[in-house]
Amino acid sequence: MGKEVLSEETIEVLRNPPLQDAARTITDGLRSHRTLLIIGNCRVDYQGRASSKLKPGDRMVIIKRDGSVLVHRPTGYDPVNWQPPGCKLQAYTEKGNLIVRAVRERPRETITIQFNKLYLLTSMALIDRGEFSLYASEEDMQRAVLLHPDLIEEGFKPITYEKKVEPGFIDVYGMDRDGRLVIVEIKRGTAGREAVLQLAKYIGSVKGEVNREVRGILAAPQLAKGAQKMLITLGLEYKRLDPKRCAELLRRSSVRKISEFL
Amino acid sequence: MGKEVLSEETIEVLRNPPLQDAARTITDGLRSHRTLLIIGNCRVDYQGRASSKLKPGDRMVIIKRDGSVLVHRPTGYDPVNWQPPGCKLQAYTEKGNLIVRAVRERPRETITIQFNKLYLLTSMALIDRGEFSLYASEEDMQRAVLLHPDLIEEGFKPITYEKKVEPGFIDVYGMDRDGRLVIVEIKRGTAGREAVLQLAKYIGSVKGEVNREVRGILAAPQLAKGAQKMLITLGLEYKRLDPKRCAELLRRSSVRKISEFL
Repeated sequence: MGKEVLSEETIEVLRNPPLQDAARTITDGLRSHRTLLIIGNCRVDYQGRASSKLKPGDRMVIIKRDGSVLVHRPTGYDPVNWQPPGCKLQAYTEKGNLIVRAVRERPRETITIQFNKLYLLTSMALIDRGEFSLYASEEDMQRAVLLHPDLIEEGFKPITYEKKVEPGFIDVYGMDRDGRLVIVEIKRGTAGREAVLQLAKYIGSVKGEVNREVRGILAAPQLAKGAQKMLITLGLEYKRLDPKRCAELLRRSSVRKISEFL
Repeated sequence: MGKEVLSEETIEVLRNPPLQDAARTITDGLRSHRTLLIIGNCRVDYQGRASSKLKPGDRMVIIKRDGSVLVHRPTGYDPVNWQPPGCKLQAYTEKGNLIVRAVRERPRETITIQFNKLYLLTSMALIDRGEFSLYASEEDMQRAVLLHPDLIEEGFKPITYEKKVEPGFIDVYGMDRDGRLVIVEIKRGTAGREAVLQLAKYIGSVKGEVNREVRGILAAPQLAKGAQKMLITLGLEYKRLDPKRCAELLRRSSVRKISEFL
């Protein structure tokens, strides 16, 4: 049905295109690093570290200009197949089908998408320089501390988390480099006197159980007026912990490592 | 620019639509559980367990008929913002912008997408009943066994994985319910004599180190001819382990639990 150039040529739309035309537009788009969106009926084969087969159905395929590929079904928020950035892509017709193939070199992984019908093909020059800022939750901050104990201090080793003590649950329970027990209370916002008291109660409870030195650390982005003085009076410590930094650390370590399972 | 009904009315495409029209089409699409694709310039705010802000840029927003939402930038294979299925969605105009809001009840999370310009809006009745079959890699099978030790036998407790011994690395090293050491060798395909010999070597190496009973289990989807006899001769065991079943278990446990970090 021909193509139309829209929105200052940022978007090219082909509706129900012949598969030959689609292959050409995709190839051109790949060459000029455009974002491609292909909607149609396809089957998908994946070969690599694992393998998978997806029988025919209507799907949305996104090919980004960095060479990442996503195959989305009409339900579910996870793509059914995908490749990270850096893929080598090809589009061609074969026996009346449109083949889109994405190959990743290391590890060697190949996704082959075979369309028998296209509903819509969109080739876009999207511009997105918007800054993304992420601020963590308290649970995220806890996970960040478990994954990166140096956020608390060098040599800190978490033993457990959400440890039940009489007055409640200790966020992170661990040991410092000198073998002293450490109780960490995490707050996402400004920590006030209430947080200090909570920490003091945990210390009291743990000291009642073990015959050892116990340190208490309040980890938060900042302290409220009065909280600092109270900490000093009670012999407790403060460590600045930034939710945004925690969020960034978690984002970076979002690739699952096998060691995370143990 | 009006709307066109395509491909037996499965796809409705609006190019550069006025935001009022877009809001109406999205609202209709949500009501009739269609898959929506919105491409335009937007900013995104997220509030929930964490919070995030994304400044304006060109993005692709997918709203699936199950109420899941994905916001994709032109690079990266992860969505920058997303919501799982089950969101309540709204679309309306406000101060010359198109607002799409997705609210999840538990935990309470809200994504607000504010478009100042739309390039393309597509409302689709996609049909996808294609079966997905996933077959795991050897590494996936190892992870599955670590997460679900019952795959080997009831009471099996992994101690470590990739344990270095003189002849190589033991896939999974653990203990059975009677306290005997267990060495598990995993094969993704049919396990042959070579796999049996490899397992026997590991056993020999470990027996040289510890003064305890050591069991050897070859875990694979099936045994090659001759391998069974060799196992019996060497006093080793076989456990059927299906790559597809492993893959499904991993898929199901893909939600990250905090306990996985320790």
